[in-house]
Amino acid sequence: MVDVPQLVEQARQGRPRAVARLISLVEGASPHLREVMAALAPLTGNAYVVGLTGSPGVGKSTTTSALVTAYRKAGKRVGVLAVDPSSPFSGGALLGDRIRMSDHASDPGVYIRSMATRGHLGGLAWAAPQAIRVLDAAGCDVILVETVGVGQSEVEIASQADTSVVLLAPGMGDGIQAAKAGILEIGDVYVVNKADRDGADATARELNHMLGLGAARAAGDWRPPIVKTVAARAEGVDEVVEALEKHRAWMEEHGVLARRRHARAAQEVETIAVTALRERIGDLHGDRRLEALADRIVAGDCDPYRAADELVEGITGS
Amino acid sequence: MVDVPQLVEQARQGRPRAVARLISLVEGASPHLREVMAALAPLTGNAYVVGLTGSPGVGKSTTTSALVTAYRKAGKRVGVLAVDPSSPFSGGALLGDRIRMSDHASDPGVYIRSMATRGHLGGLAWAAPQAIRVLDAAGCDVILVETVGVGQSEVEIASQADTSVVLLAPGMGDGIQAAKAGILEIGDVYVVNKADRDGADATARELNHMLGLGAARAAGDWRPPIVKTVAARAEGVDEVVEALEKHRAWMEEHGVLARRRHARAAQEVETIAVTALRERIGDLHGDRRLEALADRIVAGDCDPYRAADELVEGITGS
Repeated sequence: MVDVPQLVEQARQGRPRAVARLISLVEGASPHLREVMAALAPLTGNAYVVGLTGSPGVGKSTTTSALVTAYRKAGKRVGVLAVDPSSPFSGGALLGDRIRMSDHASDPGVYIRSMATRGHLGGLAWAAPQAIRVLDAAGCDVILVETVGVGQSEVEIASQADTSVVLLAPGMGDGIQAAKAGILEIGDVYVVNKADRDGADATARELNHMLGLGAARAAGDWRPPIVKTVAARAEGVDEVVEALEKHRAWMEEHGVLARRRHARAAQEVETIAVTALRERIGDLHGDRRLEALADRIVAGDCDPYRAADELVEGITGS
Repeated sequence: MVDVPQLVEQARQGRPRAVARLISLVEGASPHLREVMAALAPLTGNAYVVGLTGSPGVGKSTTTSALVTAYRKAGKRVGVLAVDPSSPFSGGALLGDRIRMSDHASDPGVYIRSMATRGHLGGLAWAAPQAIRVLDAAGCDVILVETVGVGQSEVEIASQADTSVVLLAPGMGDGIQAAKAGILEIGDVYVVNKADRDGADATARELNHMLGLGAARAAGDWRPPIVKTVAARAEGVDEVVEALEKHRAWMEEHGVLARRRHARAAQEVETIAVTALRERIGDLHGDRRLEALADRIVAGDCDPYRAADELVEGITGS
């Protein structure tokens, strides 16, 4: 028996178990999902959502943990969502990362949640925003969304954050990697972590150069700052917080925050709608209709477009 | 004026410009797309489709080029589809890679096509299979599909190939990278390229160990072989071809090839159908309906699930 209004009320009061339960309900596509989301809606929109991305080994979890400490000192309630869209094989590494977060495990002003999106219907784009809504409604002032892994998932996370932090570290061939993954286009703030290592200045210079390669910026445009940190010793972390606050102020001043949140909401609705439509195709799949179409395609009796037209007709009636 | 039957006939005769024109028509979502796909359907199903994936720098293009040479020696017609789902920033690297393929540029038995899927509606999953169909219908015996980049796109490519080759190179931290990207689950054949470098044996051993970590295999199951190559000197390339042929024979013997192609066709239809449904949401988007819903969500007046229900109703009428 799930009492959704009571759970939401308890989450508002800062009870970690209620927050955890609500996240489980929304990420597990429970029968209560719609009730939970409806109850949360009027309570959301207050949290500042910061995405942290970067290749494995740059120190994302250490940086996240240091940011939690900094925000807690400022009296903020903090939510951490650690999203792992990768293989079960990475479980070991993930566990190691999570241990660093245990500094905050007993702090009632911090919620930490890991989320494995692999196998999730709709993946990251579907599961993470719902968990962010729960943390937002529970009264978190700041939500740090950290992704493990590379590539597409980072871009997805960036689209769900108010501000995107891209982390790099010296000597990891990050310049090329960053370019490949397209993360040069998603960072609002860049952090070169492990800045006590050889090559940190070169990495920052290379990054600065690459950021300058883009189209000329108009006056008033945001120029992503590059902050050097040694997160393990909390060096430079206050400067990261400062850069985040500056970016937030700039977004509010220029209406960017409202536009981003609008775009995010639109994308979220679209993703849920497409997932629902895909499920209807899945139902047809169960009906063997899709199976029969696939057989005809393999045999060369039908092309995939004609087959898709038939499927769409089956769902929409036109 | 596009004469589709004539183009298809010319492509069948091996005219490269007709092949190129057909691919442009299918990847550009031309008004002739459906006519082209319908004309190609009865001509497809003969090509053996091999996917090649791996992190940047492992030598994918060099290996692909060496495989082309090997298959040409065996008298096969070969198609190469180089898919780049990454940022425009990688253009430089891509160009460098492509130059290696110029050995084959004047060979009428080889078709080479680059495909930038970024910005494509539906992305890689949508564009690549259509190009593969064109190359198949044009009489290619073997189609090599090479992806630039990492992560999700590799998994997508793997799902579109009959056989997936995963490339690694020594000393790139590939063990961890492979695990993160989940590529340990998609390889039918593994290649450790640049095997003349230090650490090649260690990489092969580590890979062998990691492959052994999976669930116990039943008798008759495919055990992915690990082949060491120096593709730049064509060393080990015949062994890769041999491994591919063995895998193909194994798939045919166990009905796996038919199952994979069936699954691929089903997935392809589903992707096209979902794209079509998504376009209908996009039409609603133009209608400002999605915009209005997003505003209500940001304001906390509506949750994304209720909004999605409204969108789906708008499309399906229920």
